[in-house]
Amino acid sequence: MNSKVTPWEVDIESEEDYRKLIEEFGVKEIDDNLLNELKEITGDLHVLLRRRFFYAHRGFDELLKEYKNGKSFFIYTGRAPSKSKMHIGHLIPFILVKWLQDKFKVNVYIQIPDEEKYWAKKTDDYEATRQYAYEDARTIASVGLDPDRTFIFINSEYIKHLYKPAIYVAREISIHEAKKVFGFDDSATIGLPFYISLQIVPTFFEESYPLIPCGIDQDPYFRLQRDIAEKFNRKKAITILSKFVWGLQGPYTKMSASDPKSAIFIDDDYETVRYKILKYAFSGGGATLEEHKKYGGKPEIDVSFFWLSVLFEEDDRKLKEIEEGYRKGEITTGELKDYTAKKVWEFLRNIQENRRKIDLDKFMYDGKLASEMWNWEFKI
Amino acid sequence: MNSKVTPWEVDIESEEDYRKLIEEFGVKEIDDNLLNELKEITGDLHVLLRRRFFYAHRGFDELLKEYKNGKSFFIYTGRAPSKSKMHIGHLIPFILVKWLQDKFKVNVYIQIPDEEKYWAKKTDDYEATRQYAYEDARTIASVGLDPDRTFIFINSEYIKHLYKPAIYVAREISIHEAKKVFGFDDSATIGLPFYISLQIVPTFFEESYPLIPCGIDQDPYFRLQRDIAEKFNRKKAITILSKFVWGLQGPYTKMSASDPKSAIFIDDDYETVRYKILKYAFSGGGATLEEHKKYGGKPEIDVSFFWLSVLFEEDDRKLKEIEEGYRKGEITTGELKDYTAKKVWEFLRNIQENRRKIDLDKFMYDGKLASEMWNWEFKI
Repeated sequence: MNSKVTPWEVDIESEEDYRKLIEEFGVKEIDDNLLNELKEITGDLHVLLRRRFFYAHRGFDELLKEYKNGKSFFIYTGRAPSKSKMHIGHLIPFILVKWLQDKFKVNVYIQIPDEEKYWAKKTDDYEATRQYAYEDARTIASVGLDPDRTFIFINSEYIKHLYKPAIYVAREISIHEAKKVFGFDDSATIGLPFYISLQIVPTFFEESYPLIPCGIDQDPYFRLQRDIAEKFNRKKAITILSKFVWGLQGPYTKMSASDPKSAIFIDDDYETVRYKILKYAFSGGGATLEEHKKYGGKPEIDVSFFWLSVLFEEDDRKLKEIEEGYRKGEITTGELKDYTAKKVWEFLRNIQENRRKIDLDKFMYDGKLASEMWNWEFKI
Repeated sequence: MNSKVTPWEVDIESEEDYRKLIEEFGVKEIDDNLLNELKEITGDLHVLLRRRFFYAHRGFDELLKEYKNGKSFFIYTGRAPSKSKMHIGHLIPFILVKWLQDKFKVNVYIQIPDEEKYWAKKTDDYEATRQYAYEDARTIASVGLDPDRTFIFINSEYIKHLYKPAIYVAREISIHEAKKVFGFDDSATIGLPFYISLQIVPTFFEESYPLIPCGIDQDPYFRLQRDIAEKFNRKKAITILSKFVWGLQGPYTKMSASDPKSAIFIDDDYETVRYKILKYAFSGGGATLEEHKKYGGKPEIDVSFFWLSVLFEEDDRKLKEIEEGYRKGEITTGELKDYTAKKVWEFLRNIQENRRKIDLDKFMYDGKLASEMWNWEFKI
């Protein structure tokens, strides 16, 4: 275990670190060829793919071949609730999921493992975490997922259905393998190794290919899945893997939900979003306005620009203009931040409106897919 | 970890080994004082206690004190189904449980962990094991448990209720502690450490004292339980701990359900019982009838006598007569075996009749206690 990246600890300091991860994990880069093949099917490409925030994959090239040959797939991802509400970074996989669901009209399964962070000792209050599980489910549904093709489940609620396949999966993985792949040691709780099996189980929900958009830190689960899937007559997991978002405090920092100076939350109002960006977002601009105009800014280390480029400025031409204008010092830090705040708010306002309106029960209990899944039983 | 006794491996070769286990596990002997105190309440003593097959305990003395002060308790034990049906040795804890339930009119909870042996790699076929789970539940109920005061549950069926408390319990135990107490290593499956939490959970079903009659190999679970019970406002587990039964093949051998020459099964008919005892039961008698009559037999190494003394001859005076007669050579091996076969059959016939008649659903789903438990929710 050389990596500084596990599902519970992430230490990335540069683009070079991301390149190294590709080698270490044995995954492939998402390159132009792959994106062109996808675009042939979908007609366009989501900004998260175009800008390579999702930058690596395992088997996505083969999945596209299979898809062209008439094979089907389903989408699976998840979100582990913790001790605070969701920030904009947490939403990223679900935004791509929504786009994929729109393009391919496939089923989407979203796991909310309310035990994971508690077992990983990232939160000390299980009941509070469980409350966030419901909040998070609502937030996730608000990206615009199809209520009849989406099933959002909380592990402790859905355990009756997860447990039997987990019995099978847990039998196939030794503590030794788990340690090797995840890097934990004997001080970990007895829950954490077992949790691995629960995260693998939803890849068996359908007999077709499971496609999993997730942070690259989650890849170890699905590497293990690929070793055992065929024993259960199931397909190997296909992953498309993202980088990590920056916190407001600077490049390659963590957007930490427990630090409001680092995170923009999904339910922040416009004033708060604007205030946080103006006050806390690390700037790549000059030390003074004079210097900035003279020497220009550095968009590559500017957190506002990072966020525009990852997600919030979908117009490639416009982004290029901003990048160049900022580099030349023609756009000031204040202007860049102000623009970013507006773009973030456009996005959040939409989510917040959806969040009030959606019928969460459809996603969790009585929509078409959800009601099927409450009758689902694992059969090999 | 010095012990040769864990829930998955038992290596006992002498009474001396049993004495050593008492020290190693830090439990107490069940002595005359304790049994007299119990007898003051119950009026008499079950043969399994009188003959000290249950020979050690943890906290039972304190429980009796608390009981006299008006405190209540409940009984919990279990049976892990495996790759074959139950033999007479498997029934022993439940026989004591029935006696205790009759005397104290308390609730009894019986866990059937259908995942344990599969995770411990003692069986390779989970579906078959799961079928034995239902068979075993029926066999256990047949010892005469009270259908309104008994709840028998299969883990994979009842997991919805077990899982939330298991989330709490699993958080409190590290892999390190689990290894130290149970002696497994990193080659174990990721299911096995988590299973510990599931075996602890039923000690939290009521807020009163859990009393657990079980084989001494199960004590490690409840040692861990005692370290964490108070965090959940629950009482520390009280155990009364038995020795292990001998297989037909000789003293301190394992009665193995996978070897029909070693085991008498609950559903064996009289002819089979008699045949197995006559043909396979290790004898402490002389090599020839002549030598036996001249030098006498050794009841202390005779498997038939072992079984009479442990369970099947309840009359102390009669047992003494048999022991002396056999030692002197007045009773032959053939006579001893024949008598044992009759006594075993008397017992089995009764179980088999009950087994046909009982309404298993009452114990598992709709008896008074069972229906309460299907609405049970863990609250700290």
